[in-house]
Amino acid sequence: MPPLVIKIGGSHGVDMAAVTADVATLAAQGRPVVLVHGTSAAADDLARRVGLPVRQLVSPTGHVSRYTDPETLEIYVAAAAGQVNKRLVAALQGLGCQAVGLSGVDGRLLLAERKTAVRTVENGRQRIVRDDYTGRLVAANADLLRLLLAHGYTPVIAPLALGQEAERLNVDGDRAAALLAAALGAETLVILSNVPGLLAAFPDERSLVRHVPVERLDWAEELAAGRMKRKILAAREALAGGVSSVIIADARAPNPVQHALAGAGTWLGATPPAVHPIPDEAAYA
Amino acid sequence: MPPLVIKIGGSHGVDMAAVTADVATLAAQGRPVVLVHGTSAAADDLARRVGLPVRQLVSPTGHVSRYTDPETLEIYVAAAAGQVNKRLVAALQGLGCQAVGLSGVDGRLLLAERKTAVRTVENGRQRIVRDDYTGRLVAANADLLRLLLAHGYTPVIAPLALGQEAERLNVDGDRAAALLAAALGAETLVILSNVPGLLAAFPDERSLVRHVPVERLDWAEELAAGRMKRKILAAREALAGGVSSVIIADARAPNPVQHALAGAGTWLGATPPAVHPIPDEAAYA
Repeated sequence: MPPLVIKIGGSHGVDMAAVTADVATLAAQGRPVVLVHGTSAAADDLARRVGLPVRQLVSPTGHVSRYTDPETLEIYVAAAAGQVNKRLVAALQGLGCQAVGLSGVDGRLLLAERKTAVRTVENGRQRIVRDDYTGRLVAANADLLRLLLAHGYTPVIAPLALGQEAERLNVDGDRAAALLAAALGAETLVILSNVPGLLAAFPDERSLVRHVPVERLDWAEELAAGRMKRKILAAREALAGGVSSVIIADARAPNPVQHALAGAGTWLGATPPAVHPIPDEAAYA
Repeated sequence: MPPLVIKIGGSHGVDMAAVTADVATLAAQGRPVVLVHGTSAAADDLARRVGLPVRQLVSPTGHVSRYTDPETLEIYVAAAAGQVNKRLVAALQGLGCQAVGLSGVDGRLLLAERKTAVRTVENGRQRIVRDDYTGRLVAANADLLRLLLAHGYTPVIAPLALGQEAERLNVDGDRAAALLAAALGAETLVILSNVPGLLAAFPDERSLVRHVPVERLDWAEELAAGRMKRKILAAREALAGGVSSVIIADARAPNPVQHALAGAGTWLGATPPAVHPIPDEAAYA
């Protein structure tokens, strides 16, 4: 059975217990599952507690990312690979699921290039930031995941990558999940967060786009705002890498994974099962 | 080749780079190595930064342990499974070693029972502490480690264990290493820290005890002070579990593992190779 990759967002509102319950059920049914998690709320919280300002880098094109200087990196690693990862692993173990927590640094799961000079806009002026430990994902090494899955383990992965100088780098969780899904030959990637999916008339949740065929990805990317833009980009990368369906769905209620697989959320690529009639998203286009 | 288990202490003074260099060399020679690490200095440092007091529990018999209430546990997990673990893994990866960082929670590597009622002495009065997340080690699950070692990976393990209610628990790194060494059928356990070994006349480093045969373990335990008592106890557990030699040695200088294997430090169990003449520790007994 081809593995299923699930990305769970790190923002407030995501129901971690609902996701782990679904993951444990799927794993118990013999489905190979890889869970990739975000870490934003936990990293922000720990940074605040140690008195580190949470700063963002805004690119000249308006792209926003976390400014990860060496001190912030230590906190980010602590929150991602320590707190969030082990909380999820322990919760899964409590449900009888043989979870194994890893980060992209472990077994060279995720390789990235450090962005050594990041152009950023601050108070209307451009400057170059040179001490940012954010990575551009380059490759995923799926061998270790295949080995673990073949032996009944459920890998749980924190969004870190190994740089070319063996630095630990902060990477985007959605794109990391996309790269891993493609490397694993996964059929489906489920991206869960605290929104119902791509909304044609944000923030009206009734305007959910049910299906984005590959030829309409440009339209979807244009439509998306904020964090959703990155998810559409991740979906595009996963689809280009051979994944059949990417589902962007809601993790704020019970059984989020089961609902997504049954047709909830926004399906990109393959057509969703027609559990509900699919509204015509062209009305919003 | 039987695996070698190396425990590296988490206190100040330990030369992490020297240890990772030796581990990478051994792994490159095809030797299966498991590295278990401590986390004391990093956990204390992070606790201080978030403004959590570092508190200790003193048992009526004088045994000292870290008081790990739920808030301290979060910090301990962050430092152990996040910061220290991923720093070591990245350093090993930089040396070409296929390191994989885990904690005892992952794959049920280390199972423990939470001490739900800890008798402690405070200002001369006894009281019972009920919110301590420290574990009494019960079992190690070596299957995952065997799988990783058989495929050329070098596991790096943080001192956490999974409790019976799926809690994450703080456990002693030396004893965790002993339990893992026994479960793996390791021939040798090397316990490295910032002291040269067991000293007959602490702190005189010239009084190093070179060899403790199994029948003199009681004597060694009596002789040991402070943290060394726990190391002797760990050594006793490893030897009882079938490990042939436990070496307690210094990690403050280059090539600490190679020196230990060549006969440095205190050897418990099997006789050390007679590289240097072995002084008669009875002179100090």
